Amino acid sequence: MDVIEYMQTLGQNARQASRAMARASTQDKNKALLAIADAITSQRDAIKAANQRDMQRGRDNGLEAALLDRLELTDERIDTMIEGLHQVATLADPVGEITDLKYRPSGIQVGKMRVPLGVIGIIYESRPNVTIEAASLCLKSGNAAILRGGSEAIEANRTLAAIISAGLEQAGLPANAVQVVETTDRAAVGALITMSEYVDVIVPRGGKGLIERISRDAKVVVIKHLDGICHVYIDEFADKTKAINIAINAKTHRYGTCNTMETLLVHQAVAADILPELAEAYVALDVELRGCERTRELLTDIHAATEEDWHTEYLAPILAIKIVDDMDSAIDHINHYGSHHTDTIVSENYTLARRFLTEVDSSSVMVNASTRFADGFEYGLGAEIGISTDKIHARGPVGLDGLTSQKYVVLGNGEVRK
Amino acid sequence: MDVIEYMQTLGQNARQASRAMARASTQDKNKALLAIADAITSQRDAIKAANQRDMQRGRDNGLEAALLDRLELTDERIDTMIEGLHQVATLADPVGEITDLKYRPSGIQVGKMRVPLGVIGIIYESRPNVTIEAASLCLKSGNAAILRGGSEAIEANRTLAAIISAGLEQAGLPANAVQVVETTDRAAVGALITMSEYVDVIVPRGGKGLIERISRDAKVVVIKHLDGICHVYIDEFADKTKAINIAINAKTHRYGTCNTMETLLVHQAVAADILPELAEAYVALDVELRGCERTRELLTDIHAATEEDWHTEYLAPILAIKIVDDMDSAIDHINHYGSHHTDTIVSENYTLARRFLTEVDSSSVMVNASTRFADGFEYGLGAEIGISTDKIHARGPVGLDGLTSQKYVVLGNGEVRK
Repeated sequence: MDVIEYMQTLGQNARQASRAMARASTQDKNKALLAIADAITSQRDAIKAANQRDMQRGRDNGLEAALLDRLELTDERIDTMIEGLHQVATLADPVGEITDLKYRPSGIQVGKMRVPLGVIGIIYESRPNVTIEAASLCLKSGNAAILRGGSEAIEANRTLAAIISAGLEQAGLPANAVQVVETTDRAAVGALITMSEYVDVIVPRGGKGLIERISRDAKVVVIKHLDGICHVYIDEFADKTKAINIAINAKTHRYGTCNTMETLLVHQAVAADILPELAEAYVALDVELRGCERTRELLTDIHAATEEDWHTEYLAPILAIKIVDDMDSAIDHINHYGSHHTDTIVSENYTLARRFLTEVDSSSVMVNASTRFADGFEYGLGAEIGISTDKIHARGPVGLDGLTSQKYVVLGNGEVRK
Repeated sequence: MDVIEYMQTLGQNARQASRAMARASTQDKNKALLAIADAITSQRDAIKAANQRDMQRGRDNGLEAALLDRLELTDERIDTMIEGLHQVATLADPVGEITDLKYRPSGIQVGKMRVPLGVIGIIYESRPNVTIEAASLCLKSGNAAILRGGSEAIEANRTLAAIISAGLEQAGLPANAVQVVETTDRAAVGALITMSEYVDVIVPRGGKGLIERISRDAKVVVIKHLDGICHVYIDEFADKTKAINIAINAKTHRYGTCNTMETLLVHQAVAADILPELAEAYVALDVELRGCERTRELLTDIHAATEEDWHTEYLAPILAIKIVDDMDSAIDHINHYGSHHTDTIVSENYTLARRFLTEVDSSSVMVNASTRFADGFEYGLGAEIGISTDKIHARGPVGLDGLTSQKYVVLGNGEVRK
């Protein structure tokens, strides 16, 4: 069987399984999640052995240390997988929720019912823990899933796939509701993102290059997140303590995350008061600063920021700083150079804060809070499959609701159109 | 300037205008809508003259009578355009609505704010009244629009475009917030649906062929509605009067609409009691019936329905009838042959009705109501730009909310991530 036929078969299986999943009771879905958690516990050694074979092959093939690190299933990561399954089982089932059921003048009652999307294709790098995370969210939201992880993780993914299918069967759900692509042929990705008859949405998780490639070639809707160029804007009316706390936290809490601040904007009226103190704190934390001309008049020993810097997601202890004339300039800068991910204003001014919330075109806009809060867990979604910087369908952290749609339901008593 | 450059210019203009539109006050948007309504009233003769030039050219080119009919701007249609503008002005502004604002354990308050999508491309046939309808919905929802109507309506569309731009300017809004493509070159459509840097979503309105072509070639998300193969299922536990009223209304209230029933499914236990009476009523209304074998045992003088019939959107006084063993067979038939548009069950049985609502995978699922209710006005959306049979982003009738997205807003008091 060639790879295209193989993917078509997975697609048909998934489409068929998706019908049973859409009807599955909350109880059965939770039973499957817990069965998978139990099986991971009891088969921990087999999972680790499969992962060690992946690791050995990776080392033999000269895989970078950072990639090997992500590939490894440590006991801690396996524990997190098990905890994650238990946590998703405790989340409220989004499927079947009816909202806004209202009577209309004709006598009918109209509302919306939340329903699964159908079949979700997830494409991710060689991190086998994502296999369980993605499977659990798709399963709980009543979808079928086709998971295509990086080829370096194939042995662990195969082992986990067998565990997931067994768990589904134990709960009386179709074993094919979650399928792992068991070929490392790259053509499988091309097939997955174009077979719109079998796949309803693609969620790519990984680097910008991967996501750009997938978005360009996909024939299926992609819930995507390209980059996180997040800003903190310290306004003229900022509380200085809040401003410094937020600016430090947004940059230095973690460097490699998409909700980390990459550019700091400061109102000209408070720059001289705040920037020197803030710069001292950054330097103490080994953060490299790059500034606009006006910033360099205050912080004389830092490098100049170039046009390139305003466009860059450093994912590193580097921060670009710009002094702006007013909030309008800050908003223009954010909407132009940002990635529509997460931006925050620090201000005590009601009217300016309200305008910032309205006018900044990002998936999360904040007042007096660290950009690091842009996260499914912090927002109370319980879990997230990614953060969307798109406007269509899902925007911001995507939880179980983001993997569902809503259909209209109409309850009548024999009404007809006049 | 070639057509690609021309469309790029429209795109750039639209993108720029969309920023001002996103910030526009409800008052200014309503002012523009009413100014456009006033200008249509005062320039009625000029609009009719432009339309008459289109009509003359159409007649000279041998345009079909049905197309000429749609092209014509009668006084009644112009009145409807004016009324429509007034009505959209009275609708609540969806933009800026904040919902679900809740405190999280970290101290931040997280909610969602409704925001415009940005730039909407609308592609439609030679019906100049759609120009005003589409423009008004995009304007009220804070979006910029690029409208590409059928080339046969170009003169009327140009006249209306000038009126719309003047109305926008009168309200202090950018004249480019609504642009009509003023070339009849077909390459304009190809450009519009692929310039994803300037266009956020495409709404095609027209025949299935047009929509299939656009969906295949688009690089931008398409809110689409292909066809309406709608079903009424008369259950074993149906109230006979409701069943007959609904089945007659769903088929015969209007034949050419997408929410008209095309196939009637009847439970075997009640077919003999209901079908002959129902058939008599249909025949009196000149509806041609086509039945499955079991139906033809009861209604001996009707033609056999072929496999093709179950797949067909007649848009005509023709009805396919099938007797089914039980509700499961009815649901299987609907999910297999239907177009996921609108389907209704007639039943007094609570458990069956509840299962039908859950298991039928359509954008509107009804109990004891005519499929003809699947409509933005009947659902209380105030207006609709179309009916989506997709699951992504918008499903069912698409009103102002369907032209918006939601971003997260976070209100804090200096909180940082621990």
